[in-house]
Amino acid sequence: MKLWDKGYKVDSLIERFTVGKDVEMDYSLAEFDVLGSLAHIHMLESIHLLEKDELTVLTNELRNIYKEIKNGDFVIEDGVEDVHSQVEMLLIQRLGDVGKKIHSGRSRNDQVLVDLKLFTRNELKLIVEKVESLYRTLVAQSEKYKEVLMPGYTHFQVAMPSSFGLWFGAYAESLIDDLLLVQAAYRVADQNPLGSAAGYGSSFPLNRQMTTDLLGFDTMNYNVVYAQMGRGKTEKVVAFALASVAATLAKLAMDVCLYMSQNFNFVSLPKELTTGSSIMPHKKNPDVFELLRSHCNKIQALPNQITLMVNNLPSGYFRDLQLVKEVFIPAFAELNDCLDIANFAIANLEVNQSILDDERYKYMYSVEEVNRRVLSGVPFRDAYREVGEEINRGEFQPDMAVNHTHEGSIGNLCLNEIDQKMEEVLKGFSFEKVELAFQKLLGQ
Amino acid sequence: MKLWDKGYKVDSLIERFTVGKDVEMDYSLAEFDVLGSLAHIHMLESIHLLEKDELTVLTNELRNIYKEIKNGDFVIEDGVEDVHSQVEMLLIQRLGDVGKKIHSGRSRNDQVLVDLKLFTRNELKLIVEKVESLYRTLVAQSEKYKEVLMPGYTHFQVAMPSSFGLWFGAYAESLIDDLLLVQAAYRVADQNPLGSAAGYGSSFPLNRQMTTDLLGFDTMNYNVVYAQMGRGKTEKVVAFALASVAATLAKLAMDVCLYMSQNFNFVSLPKELTTGSSIMPHKKNPDVFELLRSHCNKIQALPNQITLMVNNLPSGYFRDLQLVKEVFIPAFAELNDCLDIANFAIANLEVNQSILDDERYKYMYSVEEVNRRVLSGVPFRDAYREVGEEINRGEFQPDMAVNHTHEGSIGNLCLNEIDQKMEEVLKGFSFEKVELAFQKLLGQ
Amino acid sequence: MKLWDKGYKVDSLIERFTVGKDVEMDYSLAEFDVLGSLAHIHMLESIHLLEKDELTVLTNELRNIYKEIKNGDFVIEDGVEDVHSQVEMLLIQRLGDVGKKIHSGRSRNDQVLVDLKLFTRNELKLIVEKVESLYRTLVAQSEKYKEVLMPGYTHFQVAMPSSFGLWFGAYAESLIDDLLLVQAAYRVADQNPLGSAAGYGSSFPLNRQMTTDLLGFDTMNYNVVYAQMGRGKTEKVVAFALASVAATLAKLAMDVCLYMSQNFNFVSLPKELTTGSSIMPHKKNPDVFELLRSHCNKIQALPNQITLMVNNLPSGYFRDLQLVKEVFIPAFAELNDCLDIANFAIANLEVNQSILDDERYKYMYSVEEVNRRVLSGVPFRDAYREVGEEINRGEFQPDMAVNHTHEGSIGNLCLNEIDQKMEEVLKGFSFEKVELAFQKLLGQ
Amino acid sequence: MKLWDKGYKVDSLIERFTVGKDVEMDYSLAEFDVLGSLAHIHMLESIHLLEKDELTVLTNELRNIYKEIKNGDFVIEDGVEDVHSQVEMLLIQRLGDVGKKIHSGRSRNDQVLVDLKLFTRNELKLIVEKVESLYRTLVAQSEKYKEVLMPGYTHFQVAMPSSFGLWFGAYAESLIDDLLLVQAAYRVADQNPLGSAAGYGSSFPLNRQMTTDLLGFDTMNYNVVYAQMGRGKTEKVVAFALASVAATLAKLAMDVCLYMSQNFNFVSLPKELTTGSSIMPHKKNPDVFELLRSHCNKIQALPNQITLMVNNLPSGYFRDLQLVKEVFIPAFAELNDCLDIANFAIANLEVNQSILDDERYKYMYSVEEVNRRVLSGVPFRDAYREVGEEINRGEFQPDMAVNHTHEGSIGNLCLNEIDQKMEEVLKGFSFEKVELAFQKLLGQ
Repeated sequence: MKLWDKGYKVDSLIERFTVGKDVEMDYSLAEFDVLGSLAHIHMLESIHLLEKDELTVLTNELRNIYKEIKNGDFVIEDGVEDVHSQVEMLLIQRLGDVGKKIHSGRSRNDQVLVDLKLFTRNELKLIVEKVESLYRTLVAQSEKYKEVLMPGYTHFQVAMPSSFGLWFGAYAESLIDDLLLVQAAYRVADQNPLGSAAGYGSSFPLNRQMTTDLLGFDTMNYNVVYAQMGRGKTEKVVAFALASVAATLAKLAMDVCLYMSQNFNFVSLPKELTTGSSIMPHKKNPDVFELLRSHCNKIQALPNQITLMVNNLPSGYFRDLQLVKEVFIPAFAELNDCLDIANFAIANLEVNQSILDDERYKYMYSVEEVNRRVLSGVPFRDAYREVGEEINRGEFQPDMAVNHTHEGSIGNLCLNEIDQKMEEVLKGFSFEKVELAFQKLLGQ
Repeated sequence: MKLWDKGYKVDSLIERFTVGKDVEMDYSLAEFDVLGSLAHIHMLESIHLLEKDELTVLTNELRNIYKEIKNGDFVIEDGVEDVHSQVEMLLIQRLGDVGKKIHSGRSRNDQVLVDLKLFTRNELKLIVEKVESLYRTLVAQSEKYKEVLMPGYTHFQVAMPSSFGLWFGAYAESLIDDLLLVQAAYRVADQNPLGSAAGYGSSFPLNRQMTTDLLGFDTMNYNVVYAQMGRGKTEKVVAFALASVAATLAKLAMDVCLYMSQNFNFVSLPKELTTGSSIMPHKKNPDVFELLRSHCNKIQALPNQITLMVNNLPSGYFRDLQLVKEVFIPAFAELNDCLDIANFAIANLEVNQSILDDERYKYMYSVEEVNRRVLSGVPFRDAYREVGEEINRGEFQPDMAVNHTHEGSIGNLCLNEIDQKMEEVLKGFSFEKVELAFQKLLGQ
Repeated sequence: MKLWDKGYKVDSLIERFTVGKDVEMDYSLAEFDVLGSLAHIHMLESIHLLEKDELTVLTNELRNIYKEIKNGDFVIEDGVEDVHSQVEMLLIQRLGDVGKKIHSGRSRNDQVLVDLKLFTRNELKLIVEKVESLYRTLVAQSEKYKEVLMPGYTHFQVAMPSSFGLWFGAYAESLIDDLLLVQAAYRVADQNPLGSAAGYGSSFPLNRQMTTDLLGFDTMNYNVVYAQMGRGKTEKVVAFALASVAATLAKLAMDVCLYMSQNFNFVSLPKELTTGSSIMPHKKNPDVFELLRSHCNKIQALPNQITLMVNNLPSGYFRDLQLVKEVFIPAFAELNDCLDIANFAIANLEVNQSILDDERYKYMYSVEEVNRRVLSGVPFRDAYREVGEEINRGEFQPDMAVNHTHEGSIGNLCLNEIDQKMEEVLKGFSFEKVELAFQKLLGQ
Repeated sequence: MKLWDKGYKVDSLIERFTVGKDVEMDYSLAEFDVLGSLAHIHMLESIHLLEKDELTVLTNELRNIYKEIKNGDFVIEDGVEDVHSQVEMLLIQRLGDVGKKIHSGRSRNDQVLVDLKLFTRNELKLIVEKVESLYRTLVAQSEKYKEVLMPGYTHFQVAMPSSFGLWFGAYAESLIDDLLLVQAAYRVADQNPLGSAAGYGSSFPLNRQMTTDLLGFDTMNYNVVYAQMGRGKTEKVVAFALASVAATLAKLAMDVCLYMSQNFNFVSLPKELTTGSSIMPHKKNPDVFELLRSHCNKIQALPNQITLMVNNLPSGYFRDLQLVKEVFIPAFAELNDCLDIANFAIANLEVNQSILDDERYKYMYSVEEVNRRVLSGVPFRDAYREVGEEINRGEFQPDMAVNHTHEGSIGNLCLNEIDQKMEEVLKGFSFEKVELAFQKLLGQ
């Protein structure tokens, strides 16, 4: 057992393996760790486990640390295991023994639980904002290009007239449904686990409703065993939501990549957004959309990744859960980047206004013609037969006027109604409550 | 190319492949296909594509077919491709030419879309009812066994006192969060796609708001391209929700299987619910829970299965989507069975009331003892050191009284508060509206 | 607990849940169960747990049952739990007490293990044959259309000349690599687990090498705990192999669907292989390829499905494994159908011979032109600049002669070398050995 | 479009998104990029696209760069897009115009393809070595503890006697089957794609067999379209193999975590390998094995992650493939760490030698007793009934002597036969050929 004999190597091997990228991940949790601690100490004072003046000095110092974090001045020092230890250590260094008191009545288990819930809530808010922003861009493009027709496909076969108004608008409306998932995830995250300690509660007379209110949570994970069970589960539910947004972006990206092909030539991008080839002047590679698609497909793998990491574990904490942070935390930045890029690129997408001049799209008006005859009194099966025969005789002359009037059709995009649906969903989030709670905790 | 030469073989090969199990799946959609048609013909009459008396005879016959379906008398005949064709064929057989008129202004694409939405909405209602029922059982067991202590584990290591009240209650509360996902899925499903035709709308002056109201939908998928895009997407979102419920059941099943081992001996089942061995009398195999776990893990694979089947398809209909039915439709029955079995088995679970007599659980009271001393005035670090030394000297005598009082702890399970949270979530569903709409359509 | 009170309902609920579709699955294992029993009884006789004449009557009757299975006359009767019980019951019914003796020294655990290994080996052989057949068709098409050029794309952008020889040939070569996976899976399956009993061996002096030889296994799963561990693991490894084949088919299907679009118009299918629309005469929906893609994407979900069902289970048998049969066994038939359909449809695919007349493909010759000048002595960067400038001035006149000579290029497809690679892989299977062993067991 | 207006922001946004972590990944490919270039220039010289003296200076400089890479002195400079550009840039900086010549007859597509193949081959070799090393440790432990009995479980229920010899040995044998998958992956990777250029070959008269030999490849990806198709596919096949090894480790880790619980107390670890609690002296948290399990479950998610990223892409290069590197390349280091840690921790695992003294394991001898009576002449069903009745009367006295003799049983572990199976598999790799080829290329 060579490794074992050489003491120092063992340590480094084991330590490297058990710490992994955990400290790196913890930087994302730092500000929320401080907020959680601020709520916790106010509660401790209320149940007489802290003196009023101890609360004051701890509050001030935690607020200082919060500022340091926000300013980028916070460092988890070498050999310090995690963000929780670093914050506690700073308090002890700066305030002495009173710093030790903040850990009463909690364990690192519920501390990381509450950090993750606060972090997640915050990140989901960002996602919602960026989704809304992309939504607005898509609606604007839908409005702008509502008159520009394009072929609609089924089975990749030219089928019926469609329009860029419809195409952009479809993705806008898709994002609204995605936000329903995001909202469910937000509600799962918006519940306070603090006070569950190591997953079995505490013999201290904690006031969990108080920390729930102080941290702006909607409610709490009452049952302490369930609070612990929320680890892994919350991440998975959030991953479902991120995957749902990502699926919409990936599909949009697939359409754009296809439509930029010379074989479609429906849309193009300013050259700054493509890569090309100096000797193939026609080539405008949609790298941005390809990478968008690939990132979004990777994000769609996240739910299964988390499921595999937590599945078939019985109740109670296992260290397996630490590793979930490594796949969960970076997913937000990845999706945010995708949303930014999609927003920017869609805003700059250029639309070919004369697609339908091409002969190959001629027959897609045949169904229109049948309907036109039906509305003028010809029985459907007769109209259908007539048009079919004209086509077969090569006599079909499409009337290219498209007159669709019903809700959600080419001529009636219902962007206002869609906007209203969006507003309804957005109203279901309660971001202000959180902001007010945090301002109070931070004395702002 | 032998296959090709023999005409009849070709046909059967191709036909078998393209039809697959689709007809089998379609039986689940039959009643919803009729409901969709009932709404559609009322709308057609309102825009003068049907005469009033035509509406009457069609309505009556569709209601007859609905009853036949409910009575198990409906058959999709050999050679008939799908449920939509079968219903239309019956109408034509029984009513003559007027039967042909119901297909105006819709295509099979939006017909199957609306069938799937109605089916899904209905199935999710069943899931909600069964989840609620299991929830009630878990809450009852939590209340019943709230005084029975058990060890709480972290890392599979004996850690702290827990209780069966906590353990049952944790899974009850978990189901509430699962219903948040189910609700999001329900809201995605509760939007009317009818009128989107083949995904590009229709030149008929359809009144989509009318069918939305007639079918009790909350709103509509306005954009017709998005309505089509909902195929595959709706199924995936629902799969997320089913997977979430399944994850809770699978974890519960894992706990039970473990706790029934002779190495734990925490719970047992009446012998009717186990398989055993006549010569190993101690053996009570928890097959029911093992299969519960396995089914639920299979259901957790569903989101990824659907994702793989629809991913990277551009917008517009592809026949790939047909196959999604084969994995989607049976998943409801599978989860329903799991919920029934879990409910039944949990209700009959027997709890060992004297687990903690075993010496091996002695040290889990050490943290309690530290806290007790802290509350009586000893500084935490000192109390911690004292107890540690007593343990090392073999002098530690645990006081087995557990006095946890905070919200969600052993002594304060907050079952009422958890019930309230459940009620809040249940209020978010609007099942009655649907029932009323259907009664009206069916003339009941 | 209503369910519980009504005895009969309980039974049916539990029974329905625990049996599930298991009996249905077991029909696929029946012939292999008999073969395993034939090997087992010969071994039992060799260690004196059966008399010679007992062996004779048992052998005869098992061979009869084998014929009944092959003739479709074998039925697992109502109330009989599985195929193993049915076969044993038949022996007892027909032969009396001697029938009971065949179960000595084995358990249902190693019985189903060996059945699954034999079944899997047999199914993989079929897969190999069908893959080889599709391979031959692709090679034939590659040879047939080697002169027909098509555009080659990168990023969906027209890039360089390609050919149908290359395109068909690429998928042929892809299948060879897939067979490497199939071979690994075959080798995992080709190991005898019989004799491992319930996963911990037996106190009978079994001769496992003898059953290994009798059943034509390459080697055995020596360690009995590992033999049991092979359940779930074997299925997963095989699923990797099936997924690999399926990925090749899915990609091929995606290409065909795209190439059949009016926007490409590279290939077409006889109308018997498409669905169309009588009033959109241009529409030839490639349903067969869409369903092929969808089935193959579903098969690609299989490895993850199995992983989720068996993951994080400790060693030793769990009934979770029963359910794996329901997703594993039907996957072979599904992939076989896909291979048949792909083979048939590819053989009938019609190739558009004049694709490149279209102006839009003109610039893909630019790289060719640069290389031509380099070969005639112009430095690469100069040649590159010259051609680029000609293009920009609109003066570029492509020389459409494509002269690629290196291995695997348009002009040198290396179909013979690829064939040789295929032969090498096929030689790695040892199907004859198995056939001989089975003939001996069956007295044929 | 604010972002767009501010030119600099656009650039950074797009650039950050399109480059991503690609440069970071490329460091892993650097040495292989140089090796690929060395082979390429020798081939170019052979077809007269390089002069002999040009070959000499390029060879020398590439060998220098190789050394710099190996010494950690190689840097991909800011603004340089990838490793290929950096190497080419260094050559031009140091050698002038001749440096530009190495890119003739290849594109970055086949360059990264060959880099990935060489990298993969090398990494798989490391995996094989580490798997073999863990295998040896497991076999040694199996031999060391072959006399120490433990209970064998089915359904988590105590079932039959097992042993640590069996338990360690089972995981050893499992690794052999995993290597069959690794070997298949190795063979897929061990094929030369160089010369496929952008996926459609080249009009230069390349000699691809020559680079195949120079790089020690077993064969080549002949068809150039297939060579390109290997991107993504190779990674997926390798991911299957890594997942297979990971599954064995994850299962082993699950067992160890369970067996370290106070409820089993079968094994323990030196305290340096656990985390504990100073006041719960019994607590030895198996963090190392929990993280091992979690990492390995994450690795098991890799195949699906890659599948989602490449699925439903038609043939031809897409930039989506770039992102696969980010999940593929780090997986090797992750699995290597897992193998090292597992090896180290298993070597130091301490086994409890007196597990079976506990009364709860008494009945697991009942099956042994039945068999004993059968072997002494009592009919099986009678022996079975007798022992059952003795147990029910409380009179059963187990004879704890376990006498299993057949292959792979407690008393006959067949470690030699298992070793032989391992040797057979290891012989199937051809690592030396590669080493010799590289030495020649590097002039060593």
